[in-house]
Amino acid sequence: MTADSAQPGDRVFDWLDRRAEDRRKAGLTRRLTPRRADADHLDLAGNDYLGLARDKRVAGAAAAAALRWGSGSTGSRLVTGSTELHAELEFELAKFCGAQAALVFSSGFAANLGAVTALAGDGAIVSDAYIHASLIDGCRLSRANVAVAGHADPVAIKHALATRRTEQALVVTDSVFSVDGDLAPLPALAQACRAHDAGLLIDDAHGFGVLGEGGRGAVADAGLIGDPDVVTTVTLSKALGAQGGAVLGPRRVIRHLVESARSFIFDTGLAPASAAAALAALHVLADEPERPQRVREVATTLSQRLKDAGLTVSTPDAAVISVRAPSPEAAVEWAGQCRAAGVWVGCFRPPSVPDKVSRLRITVRADLTDGEVDRAVSVITQHAPR
Amino acid sequence: MTADSAQPGDRVFDWLDRRAEDRRKAGLTRRLTPRRADADHLDLAGNDYLGLARDKRVAGAAAAAALRWGSGSTGSRLVTGSTELHAELEFELAKFCGAQAALVFSSGFAANLGAVTALAGDGAIVSDAYIHASLIDGCRLSRANVAVAGHADPVAIKHALATRRTEQALVVTDSVFSVDGDLAPLPALAQACRAHDAGLLIDDAHGFGVLGEGGRGAVADAGLIGDPDVVTTVTLSKALGAQGGAVLGPRRVIRHLVESARSFIFDTGLAPASAAAALAALHVLADEPERPQRVREVATTLSQRLKDAGLTVSTPDAAVISVRAPSPEAAVEWAGQCRAAGVWVGCFRPPSVPDKVSRLRITVRADLTDGEVDRAVSVITQHAPR
Ligand SMILES: Cc1ncc(COP(=O)(O)O)c(C=O)c1O
Ligand SMILES: Cc1ncc(COP(=O)(O)O)c(C=O)c1O
Repeated sequence: MTADSAQPGDRVFDWLDRRAEDRRKAGLTRRLTPRRADADHLDLAGNDYLGLARDKRVAGAAAAAALRWGSGSTGSRLVTGSTELHAELEFELAKFCGAQAALVFSSGFAANLGAVTALAGDGAIVSDAYIHASLIDGCRLSRANVAVAGHADPVAIKHALATRRTEQALVVTDSVFSVDGDLAPLPALAQACRAHDAGLLIDDAHGFGVLGEGGRGAVADAGLIGDPDVVTTVTLSKALGAQGGAVLGPRRVIRHLVESARSFIFDTGLAPASAAAALAALHVLADEPERPQRVREVATTLSQRLKDAGLTVSTPDAAVISVRAPSPEAAVEWAGQCRAAGVWVGCFRPPSVPDKVSRLRITVRADLTDGEVDRAVSVITQHAPR
Repeated sequence: MTADSAQPGDRVFDWLDRRAEDRRKAGLTRRLTPRRADADHLDLAGNDYLGLARDKRVAGAAAAAALRWGSGSTGSRLVTGSTELHAELEFELAKFCGAQAALVFSSGFAANLGAVTALAGDGAIVSDAYIHASLIDGCRLSRANVAVAGHADPVAIKHALATRRTEQALVVTDSVFSVDGDLAPLPALAQACRAHDAGLLIDDAHGFGVLGEGGRGAVADAGLIGDPDVVTTVTLSKALGAQGGAVLGPRRVIRHLVESARSFIFDTGLAPASAAAALAALHVLADEPERPQRVREVATTLSQRLKDAGLTVSTPDAAVISVRAPSPEAAVEWAGQCRAAGVWVGCFRPPSVPDKVSRLRITVRADLTDGEVDRAVSVITQHAPR
């Protein structure tokens, strides 16, 4: 091609190719690999912790809602996007968990953005260093002064609260951290907040449906869910097998979000099918409290057996197990070999990990059989880098 | 209650009540009003422009997909959340519009956040003053230097580009602005960008499915959709009657988003039911090109008749009509009276409007009958504030 044949504008995005090349050299290339509907691999990578996404009661409720309510909610929640289904889901979520009220967003990501930005105001935010990307983006978007304390370090949080310059303050943390699956020291955090008149926002994405009595979540388990200074976010896309997110908290917090959270106001309401699926999943969870228990047992067993096989494995507080890999390239290769052997595991590398350590991220489900656990152990250990 | 009976933490969120009181005094209270499945009001407030959200083919495809693929995608698009359905939707969207490639997000909001932050890099952003909240939040989240030019003012954009301090630059605009429904001067913007080596990001949320040949959108209509320096975002939640969003653009842009857009990487993939609904709606659109034409005709007719009745009405470039109200309170009352008479119209007030002018926001659908247009005119004019 001669220079003349170039279109105007051809070079504007040339820098993207340079970035792609940098990622390639660093072993950080990512590719989408669409799965088939009839795929028969063993899934240890998804977040369908209770095995409900393909439960007939849940998928059936989604299908029925699409036919009854339509395929979309047609508008923002404040205009035409609130149906009685959304209201019922909010009522049931709050009741199940023991919160005063709940508000459903189109995703857990949007719920976190909305909760952080609307509740931080122009005060101070103090966050754990390992919070989820959606909480980090909420902090960045807020007008608050943001201080990042160490990971799972209530003393550091306390210090940051004590030395803040504004009256208003919000502490932000995951309950179960998404990469390693470890539990935050929630009671100590709540104490630190109370000692310093700060609100506490807890993302229970990986605790809800898995921890606490009947799967009521890590915040309920810590006895904090109904407290006047605690706000919880959950996703409908993991244990409930659907899509969407929700904020649970005091009634005045929910009202404030309705009136000021930008990711709520300026976003189309959750599709009826997803709202109905989450509601049906919540009913299954209430009827079958053995599911959360089973998922915790499977996690403990699997992690212990991988540890026994000599791997460096986290001790899971919920359904997420992290297995250390020596490098991003080794993690990719390991995960690739497991996948080729029919076992899908997650592969987390920078920049998706807060500590720059690459690892396999393994998740378990309530419906895994003992035979599947055996197969997982055998395939993962067999392909471990030496 | 005595002071002792107060729980610790009771007062942390007291400031939310003060904010609520401020909003009440300013006439800016907002409330959710869930609708029933069998509601028979005339909906002139939603964004289901082609009338497809309750089309049997579309809702049926959503229902079938929930049963076939499950109620959720179970993980991030890069882990387990990409199905063949997502890949097919991306392929068909790109092909229909004439772009090289497409990437589906869980919402239009998330698509905008991801596109702006990932494509602005640490360069400069120049935006129209009236862009959608999700684009504004993308600008705020980015590391770029952001300059806001006037509304629909290519000369101001050009000036801002000429005086920027970085090499990389991205111009950000809506195609059809969400509040007034006016069309951006896309050809002049593209020219300005090319003269200054800047990329152009266009949010076609309200143009896609309504404008252009067969509803291919405002960017296609301006002949820009396949250009190497133009990126388009669309939502699946308006004309396609589903939920979700997508970015359309050059292949290297899409690859860059897969590898670096945080609202893509750290968010659960779109629910299969919503992806299937969008795909089915796209097929209906391809088969029935008279739908976009009908929606434009209805908009023109309705706006002209409201103007003839003496109201201050925008001349619609797409499906959105804006009718001026004298105050936020008057707008709320007017919309409330229309609603009581069975006609739902949007009511936009600060802070959801960029120009501080309160108005009714009226949207039309391809499936409105002439009788429904008559009824709309009669109810809206009858309750107009004098
Ligand atoms: C801790 C945490 N919070 C929030 C989210 C976002 O939720 P969603 O995927 O429903 O948007 C995720 C993962 O996706 C997560 O791991
Ligand atoms: C111009 C514009 N862009 C983006 C969005 C967000 O899209 P979604 O509602 O699908 O998240 C909207 C409205 O909701 C919009 O009006």
